[in-house]
Amino acid sequence: MTYLQTTLESAGVRKFITAVILFNAVILGLETSAMVMARVGTFIGILDRICLAIFVVELALKLLAYRFRFFRDGWNIFDFAIVAVSLVPAAQSLSVLRSLRILRILRVVSVAPRLRRVVEGFITALPGMASVFLLMGIIFYIGSVISTKLFGADFPQWFGSLGQSAYSLFQIMTLESWSMGIVRPVMEVYPYAWVFFVPFIMVTTFAVVNLLVGLIVNSMQDAHSEEADQKTDTYRDEVLARLKAIEERLIQD
Amino acid sequence: MTYLQTTLESAGVRKFITAVILFNAVILGLETSAMVMARVGTFIGILDRICLAIFVVELALKLLAYRFRFFRDGWNIFDFAIVAVSLVPAAQSLSVLRSLRILRILRVVSVAPRLRRVVEGFITALPGMASVFLLMGIIFYIGSVISTKLFGADFPQWFGSLGQSAYSLFQIMTLESWSMGIVRPVMEVYPYAWVFFVPFIMVTTFAVVNLLVGLIVNSMQDAHSEEADQKTDTYRDEVLARLKAIEERLIQD
Amino acid sequence: MTYLQTTLESAGVRKFITAVILFNAVILGLETSAMVMARVGTFIGILDRICLAIFVVELALKLLAYRFRFFRDGWNIFDFAIVAVSLVPAAQSLSVLRSLRILRILRVVSVAPRLRRVVEGFITALPGMASVFLLMGIIFYIGSVISTKLFGADFPQWFGSLGQSAYSLFQIMTLESWSMGIVRPVMEVYPYAWVFFVPFIMVTTFAVVNLLVGLIVNSMQDAHSEEADQKTDTYRDEVLARLKAIEERLIQD
Amino acid sequence: MTYLQTTLESAGVRKFITAVILFNAVILGLETSAMVMARVGTFIGILDRICLAIFVVELALKLLAYRFRFFRDGWNIFDFAIVAVSLVPAAQSLSVLRSLRILRILRVVSVAPRLRRVVEGFITALPGMASVFLLMGIIFYIGSVISTKLFGADFPQWFGSLGQSAYSLFQIMTLESWSMGIVRPVMEVYPYAWVFFVPFIMVTTFAVVNLLVGLIVNSMQDAHSEEADQKTDTYRDEVLARLKAIEERLIQD
Repeated sequence: MTYLQTTLESAGVRKFITAVILFNAVILGLETSAMVMARVGTFIGILDRICLAIFVVELALKLLAYRFRFFRDGWNIFDFAIVAVSLVPAAQSLSVLRSLRILRILRVVSVAPRLRRVVEGFITALPGMASVFLLMGIIFYIGSVISTKLFGADFPQWFGSLGQSAYSLFQIMTLESWSMGIVRPVMEVYPYAWVFFVPFIMVTTFAVVNLLVGLIVNSMQDAHSEEADQKTDTYRDEVLARLKAIEERLIQD
Repeated sequence: MTYLQTTLESAGVRKFITAVILFNAVILGLETSAMVMARVGTFIGILDRICLAIFVVELALKLLAYRFRFFRDGWNIFDFAIVAVSLVPAAQSLSVLRSLRILRILRVVSVAPRLRRVVEGFITALPGMASVFLLMGIIFYIGSVISTKLFGADFPQWFGSLGQSAYSLFQIMTLESWSMGIVRPVMEVYPYAWVFFVPFIMVTTFAVVNLLVGLIVNSMQDAHSEEADQKTDTYRDEVLARLKAIEERLIQD
Repeated sequence: MTYLQTTLESAGVRKFITAVILFNAVILGLETSAMVMARVGTFIGILDRICLAIFVVELALKLLAYRFRFFRDGWNIFDFAIVAVSLVPAAQSLSVLRSLRILRILRVVSVAPRLRRVVEGFITALPGMASVFLLMGIIFYIGSVISTKLFGADFPQWFGSLGQSAYSLFQIMTLESWSMGIVRPVMEVYPYAWVFFVPFIMVTTFAVVNLLVGLIVNSMQDAHSEEADQKTDTYRDEVLARLKAIEERLIQD
Repeated sequence: MTYLQTTLESAGVRKFITAVILFNAVILGLETSAMVMARVGTFIGILDRICLAIFVVELALKLLAYRFRFFRDGWNIFDFAIVAVSLVPAAQSLSVLRSLRILRILRVVSVAPRLRRVVEGFITALPGMASVFLLMGIIFYIGSVISTKLFGADFPQWFGSLGQSAYSLFQIMTLESWSMGIVRPVMEVYPYAWVFFVPFIMVTTFAVVNLLVGLIVNSMQDAHSEEADQKTDTYRDEVLARLKAIEERLIQD
């Protein structure tokens, strides 16, 4: 580990960067207030640029220190992407890209180890749910095609295209206004529409519940096996050691 | 296993069928776009028929290879039913049956082993919930009869018949607009309507929660007992083997 | 067990009673249809009375067979109460009491052992949740008093009295239209109303979640300890038996 | 323990205080009824003051008995704060502070040991969820800034300021009218608004689910390890004792 690396990983630098991130968060928050911007808009713009400059320098130094190994850590790529977005020239004009600058606050996650662990926990839970997600994707695709074909002509605002249908079905899955807002009006034209929607709600809700159950069982098993190991191992070792001792003694006899 | 069986089960054929299913999914998705259909509608119709023909040939070959054993596997019956629906002549005219052709995409579940396992997991979980489902059916029937008798005359759009009441109660169980949409208007005519609806919500929600709890406990037990078995079995065997050895040695003495 | 008791508990009588309950359920369901009632209303009324008569005879015989022990079983009291409601003279005139006759279908729960067990499971889970329920009662009472005092004057339809406030808070707890329907309109008069409602939602949701967690942990423990007992007991006994045998042999020496 | 302390902790005093709390709860509940206040308003006001006086005397005696140790117990501080609020002079004029007097009923929690334990259980569960809460705070801050910048100009009633945006996003997280009420209207101006809202719903819902899972796993582990300890400890001790005895006997030989 070179001098540059140890400096960059030191508690001082980490605290300074965290402070800059939080300061930048406040700055970007103030930007949303029209009153503040009217009074000290240029000053806030300058402060924001200073924050960005600090991030750029930090990342440049990290790149210098670690070279290609920099990109082996997912969190580094994460930081790099977030800062890169703010540097795209269009970012200064397009309002959508400009507002994405707030994503820089997410850097606080990569800096704070506890938050990092929570996010890593989230991400490791995802692959176990891949099959159920894929299945839900298939159900949504089938549901979208069917609802577009059946109800698209009469309700273009909800089921006009595959995309609109998928959005409406997502809304229905979250149970938001599914009946009063969508299914009852549809049933006035197609009285048997509930034959499609009620099973759809049951199947998708059941799938979501299964995601949840899978998540619980997984984290429980992880937690449980760790704990069980620690406990029984010492006991296990003691019993086996004693049994061995008895056997050896008997052999000596 | 005959030559035909090994060929049909081979990775190559499986991949080809999966590709056809996915291609067919895209075709049926494009059919929902009026613009695409206006330009290349006949071409898309032909491609869809080719896909269907491939499925028919595949199933015919499977039937030839396995004869009556074909119907012993639930997934084969599933595939057969899905393809059969598309072959019904009416399927070409009735829009509802036409739109059911998209169900063919579900064949991807029977082809992909991982998705198959998820669905089989869902299905094996169902019998354990049969009693609770039956109980909820009874509660819904009672609730429908009561609400139809009490509120049917004044609110025919919600509680006009047993079927409409059951639908409205399902909506109320999902908590969608239950108060602002239904119970508050009903309470303007029958101020004590909440005496029926609030306990109904509590009982059905509690039943749903119990379904969820049952599901969690079951999968946990399955997961746990498997894991516990593997772990303690080796330890168990070792202790017992050593104890036996000691006993034998003592007897020898 | 007398001859009368064995006859009443026999599979034949049980099946007959179940059949009468289900037949009665269909009869009461048909009563909700105005068309059916117009045509064969009197016939259906007679059938309903016959079913009721059979229940009365069955309960009378049970009372005769078990005397006072009849009331020791909660399910018997349950059956008795349900049938008694239908016999109250007012039951023939008051529409509410008339519609309660459908509750007779609940007798199917007391007849079918599996459903009985599910309901008994529900009921045994309740005492463990008593403290949380009491706490939620306190929170609701406090919430009702505060919201009645603060918002009652301006929103009498929602917070006019303690009862109306409790109902509105229950609706808010179920998250139904809480914001668009109630809190946003209230915030137009009292901009800081969210200070009351958002924490109320968080606290009550957290309490409900704790009910759920308690339920899961309890059933898990029950299930787990039973299973664990069965498993380790045989192993435990074997190890201890062997150890005892070794000790005895050593003492003999 | 002095005489004053034992008296204050005695069952009689505890029951008396509980009775006063419940009586005060009824009094404050009656105060919400305009009819009751018009008739016996002054009488109720006097009763309320008497209850308050009793609480003040009780706390004063406790302070006298325990001196500074009084403030070492969190529940004492809780009682003190609740009573103090009612004594603030403004409490007699400001309607908000006046309505806070009902919080006195919460004293029933500090008096009843079972309720105390439930609340303590809630509070001990909080620190374990701190990281997820912090993460959700960050997500909400980012979401608020983005939605204020993008949609604030066109939808000032929902996304006009950071605070309004945070409230709207909280509503969206609870899934209340998120689509029909907010996202569909927004999508009429910004057709791609779902790109922001749908992932927001997914991420926050997933985080809430993880809170729930963490809660379940924690209480399960607590419950499980306690139970497991009790069970295996006796067995463990017996096996080890027997093994030791065998070894000693062998050494004696």
